[in-house]
Amino acid sequence: MKRDVTLVVLAAGIGKRFRPFTKDKNLFPFLGSPLIDFVLPKSLPPEVIHCVVVANGTNKEALERIRFPVPHTVVVQEEATGMAGAILAAKPHIAGKSILIVIADDVADPALMEMVMKAVRPDVFGVLTTWKPQQYFPGGYVVFRDNRPVGIKEKPGAGNTPGEYVYFGGQYIAHADRLIEAIQNGKKSGDDIYEAALTKLMSDERFTAVIYDGGFVSLKYPWHVLDMTTYLLHHRLKPGKGKNVDIRNNVSLEGVVYLGNNVKIFENTKIVGPVYVGDNTIIGNNNIIRESILGEGCVTGFNTDITRSYIGDNCWFHSNYIGDSVLEENVSMGSGSVLANLRLDEGEITSVIAEEKVGTGKTKLGAMIGEGVRIGVNVSVMPGVKIGAQSMIGAGIILDRDIPEGSYCVSKSVIDIKRNKANIASGNREHYKTKI
Amino acid sequence: MKRDVTLVVLAAGIGKRFRPFTKDKNLFPFLGSPLIDFVLPKSLPPEVIHCVVVANGTNKEALERIRFPVPHTVVVQEEATGMAGAILAAKPHIAGKSILIVIADDVADPALMEMVMKAVRPDVFGVLTTWKPQQYFPGGYVVFRDNRPVGIKEKPGAGNTPGEYVYFGGQYIAHADRLIEAIQNGKKSGDDIYEAALTKLMSDERFTAVIYDGGFVSLKYPWHVLDMTTYLLHHRLKPGKGKNVDIRNNVSLEGVVYLGNNVKIFENTKIVGPVYVGDNTIIGNNNIIRESILGEGCVTGFNTDITRSYIGDNCWFHSNYIGDSVLEENVSMGSGSVLANLRLDEGEITSVIAEEKVGTGKTKLGAMIGEGVRIGVNVSVMPGVKIGAQSMIGAGIILDRDIPEGSYCVSKSVIDIKRNKANIASGNREHYKTKI
Amino acid sequence: MKRDVTLVVLAAGIGKRFRPFTKDKNLFPFLGSPLIDFVLPKSLPPEVIHCVVVANGTNKEALERIRFPVPHTVVVQEEATGMAGAILAAKPHIAGKSILIVIADDVADPALMEMVMKAVRPDVFGVLTTWKPQQYFPGGYVVFRDNRPVGIKEKPGAGNTPGEYVYFGGQYIAHADRLIEAIQNGKKSGDDIYEAALTKLMSDERFTAVIYDGGFVSLKYPWHVLDMTTYLLHHRLKPGKGKNVDIRNNVSLEGVVYLGNNVKIFENTKIVGPVYVGDNTIIGNNNIIRESILGEGCVTGFNTDITRSYIGDNCWFHSNYIGDSVLEENVSMGSGSVLANLRLDEGEITSVIAEEKVGTGKTKLGAMIGEGVRIGVNVSVMPGVKIGAQSMIGAGIILDRDIPEGSYCVSKSVIDIKRNKANIASGNREHYKTKI
Repeated sequence: MKRDVTLVVLAAGIGKRFRPFTKDKNLFPFLGSPLIDFVLPKSLPPEVIHCVVVANGTNKEALERIRFPVPHTVVVQEEATGMAGAILAAKPHIAGKSILIVIADDVADPALMEMVMKAVRPDVFGVLTTWKPQQYFPGGYVVFRDNRPVGIKEKPGAGNTPGEYVYFGGQYIAHADRLIEAIQNGKKSGDDIYEAALTKLMSDERFTAVIYDGGFVSLKYPWHVLDMTTYLLHHRLKPGKGKNVDIRNNVSLEGVVYLGNNVKIFENTKIVGPVYVGDNTIIGNNNIIRESILGEGCVTGFNTDITRSYIGDNCWFHSNYIGDSVLEENVSMGSGSVLANLRLDEGEITSVIAEEKVGTGKTKLGAMIGEGVRIGVNVSVMPGVKIGAQSMIGAGIILDRDIPEGSYCVSKSVIDIKRNKANIASGNREHYKTKI
Repeated sequence: MKRDVTLVVLAAGIGKRFRPFTKDKNLFPFLGSPLIDFVLPKSLPPEVIHCVVVANGTNKEALERIRFPVPHTVVVQEEATGMAGAILAAKPHIAGKSILIVIADDVADPALMEMVMKAVRPDVFGVLTTWKPQQYFPGGYVVFRDNRPVGIKEKPGAGNTPGEYVYFGGQYIAHADRLIEAIQNGKKSGDDIYEAALTKLMSDERFTAVIYDGGFVSLKYPWHVLDMTTYLLHHRLKPGKGKNVDIRNNVSLEGVVYLGNNVKIFENTKIVGPVYVGDNTIIGNNNIIRESILGEGCVTGFNTDITRSYIGDNCWFHSNYIGDSVLEENVSMGSGSVLANLRLDEGEITSVIAEEKVGTGKTKLGAMIGEGVRIGVNVSVMPGVKIGAQSMIGAGIILDRDIPEGSYCVSKSVIDIKRNKANIASGNREHYKTKI
Repeated sequence: MKRDVTLVVLAAGIGKRFRPFTKDKNLFPFLGSPLIDFVLPKSLPPEVIHCVVVANGTNKEALERIRFPVPHTVVVQEEATGMAGAILAAKPHIAGKSILIVIADDVADPALMEMVMKAVRPDVFGVLTTWKPQQYFPGGYVVFRDNRPVGIKEKPGAGNTPGEYVYFGGQYIAHADRLIEAIQNGKKSGDDIYEAALTKLMSDERFTAVIYDGGFVSLKYPWHVLDMTTYLLHHRLKPGKGKNVDIRNNVSLEGVVYLGNNVKIFENTKIVGPVYVGDNTIIGNNNIIRESILGEGCVTGFNTDITRSYIGDNCWFHSNYIGDSVLEENVSMGSGSVLANLRLDEGEITSVIAEEKVGTGKTKLGAMIGEGVRIGVNVSVMPGVKIGAQSMIGAGIILDRDIPEGSYCVSKSVIDIKRNKANIASGNREHYKTKI
């Protein structure tokens, strides 16, 4: 007989490394749905009959409104103490239960939860989901003995790993009380409170590991929105066409394309899927849109190129190049402005997060732009630059640094004005016309 | 029996607030004709048998050459003393006559003169044309008593208006001598010499008012060329196609479009009417032209967007965005230059006229550019900027101010030159090709 | 009976005025072949049975590998002493022979050698090829007496020319020994060592002149690559299409067009011949390519305009305008960058060569860019500018000067950052949509 299981969804992360984006990571909209919808598949394993969502102070109400596949209760984690604190916050709802823990911004194959539940046997106390990164990954490496997981070493450092596998969201624990106890009696500070508790449990009880070799993406840094966009476009997008879609002459659509209600696409435009276009968005003449998500109510204007990017709702463009970039909602760009996505030396693009330079692992990365930003004409935004919400970037600026929220930037260029001595008659150019 | 009437056309304004445009306002070309042609309809009321045109020192000869619907005499107003001075200048030709006064740059419904003449009755000494602005308008407000106009208050100020109607061009006076007398015996200075004389006459004689509720546009400030363009495109443009028009593959024409002789339109271009294109103009590949007037002999080049704009003769473009802008003849713009038409804060665009900041009433307004101006590549011209005739604007300038006639402007940008340490083999990029 | 002739190909020029291009002029690739292939026609006059190529230290091996129409020997000219030195370097191979001298970077009608050989008669010691420039040309003017050439005046200066004709490559000398002797006994220094020797020979022996009135182009200055491109495109290009060419919907091809193997051309692009496109080159959507040579392995990206230009192998573009410009291989340009090709005053474009300002004779001339150069987004390169190989030009630069090899340039623009007080709701723009 199957045991009933409570799903614990950890959604309390406040995303301070996710700036300039101000939306809750778990609710960040992709393909017309909040991210959490992709974490919770429509058909959960049958054992899961209830769900506890651990929220933070600001996303609680939104999470209560989300439609879950099973009844759900939202609890608030008061302190930002990571997963350990999240489990403690869920305590009143999981005491005495078996639990399956998932992280709300970790998107993987929807069959993963089934895989975990299938690994549950009478003699198994816990199941870990593990994954083998291609290079060193700053996560929790699993220590195996006799093919069984017996502990976790959090961020051991490259060359110092106890094995090849890291664990991630998707843990089954037969008795939540034991986990709570291990946390309460364990370490009080450090990066690895949760992992220490789990290791204690693993030394006392029998765990098994599920090896997951599909893709998974989580939202930690702002450029991860691009990884998520790529993952969801390739794995979750279904082709479709809403009501009242208006496609003009000589538009070409290739690959998997979803067009929402009332979408218009004007002449001589090419859409190269996978591409998702939200309701009421207008794609102008002579555009190219490739491998991107466009939100609702956008207007791309004339002659815009959007490639491998994420565009929020109500963004406006006009003759822009947006490559490998993320724009939250209500961003607009003036004609001729470009989000550069490749360094001149074609090297890795870095970004400053919490005053520290972080490698992004990408050689193609454009800008990350918060909501409500206005960009003037002929602006050049350098690769990897982040622009805080509600900022304005004046015409012609070469933006080579991050801009804090609510800034107003103008270029202090100097114009030298003299008397003009030349005077060109229009007739001078007549001979050029013969060459047209 | 109908009385014969002399039409008095006031065309002596010198347009000092109309800079950077140097053409006479009354003769400013629209849809291939001087503006005055739209003021004087082809069929005048039958009572009108002669016309006196009051010119200034510079437009006299051109006005003599214009073909009028009735015989016309041109007189010169020596002093810039407004309408009162204009009537006095016309005195030798109107003494003893009934007159109908129109202003040469006030364009309204061509049926308006008929309306005025139909209001003439044996007991009526004068007829005023009146119009109800939607908000305060700096003109002459009509004072009514017992439904009859009895006076005019010039520019009373918002909240201080004696009624809802302002008068404008289109006044009938049964005896010109009385108007002349009232002017000669009235005020000698101020903004309202003419209105004071008219008020005196209205207190002595019976006037009636025609209420006009159609559109009307006049050219006072340079951006009024846009209002005139919109008005004439929507009210006076007839579709048509000249001789030897060459339209290539995949060009789309929507709405009312007039193409002059020898016009060429290259591939993948869209014209969204109402649009007027003058003779010998070449519209390049992949353009979009919307709701605009293009003069003769222009070349739009590759990939240009001209929207809600007025383009004079012999202008050259190449990959430009020209929105809500006015360019006099023989202007050229280098590739990538943009006339921005929207402030970052989307507020009203102001302009400096005679050293005073003036609200334009527009939130979308581009540049106003005098004849013979040359603009380099990748220039950004800010909304509402005016560039004086025969000026040159160097590459890459962010032009945030008005430029006087005959200026030569270059950007004083500084380039920092070091040794380059990177060296990129072409092979590095091969993997990008697989993504194309 | 015909006499056997040794062809002497002068290919020792080191091209110091040819910078920023670093390739050997004689081997500069055009239409998929090194330039020298166009100098040496496939069918030489039958008298020519052997060839001596005079190389410099660096191009010797490459010249040995070139397939010649007759067996060839490569000799190295050790000192840069012009044509006289070249003849002396060839001495071991031409002693006792009749010779026909051609210059490896002088391209003319392929029938020219036949014309020269047809002028050979028993009583003729030498044949000069002459050509009549339209204006003063800094070359060797031929002195005629009784219709026979009797001497050469090197660069006599305008107004001081002894006749109308200049000589150029394509000289027949019946006995090379006599020419060698004249050089060895003649002037030891100056610009005209070779012409002095020739003049001596012409005073002793009977010469005849062939008058050539076809086109001819040589590569002296870097912008001559454009003249060569124009000449070869118009005179030597044959239409053709390689294997596996992929042309998408709504592409138009006009005029003579050659497309190499695996060329792809995406939607809404226009090719206006004569145009040559090398193997594996990808031409993106909404491009226009006119009268140009594109090398192998290029990617033009979206919305690029390449007009009257020479593009080397493996160049990458994206929404650029490249007019009247020369790019050596492995150059890339960021989105929105423009190579301006016309001065604001539409005057002649000058260039600095060896610290001296030189008129290019052109009013339309873009940039000349060495191999491996990387140009950022929204860069404006002024007409006539030269960029040395392996340099990087940062975003937004207005490049108004030549840049030495291996430079790294960034714009030192200043951004003024304040607090933004405005805050625009996305709803503000809804009314604009009705205008789309």
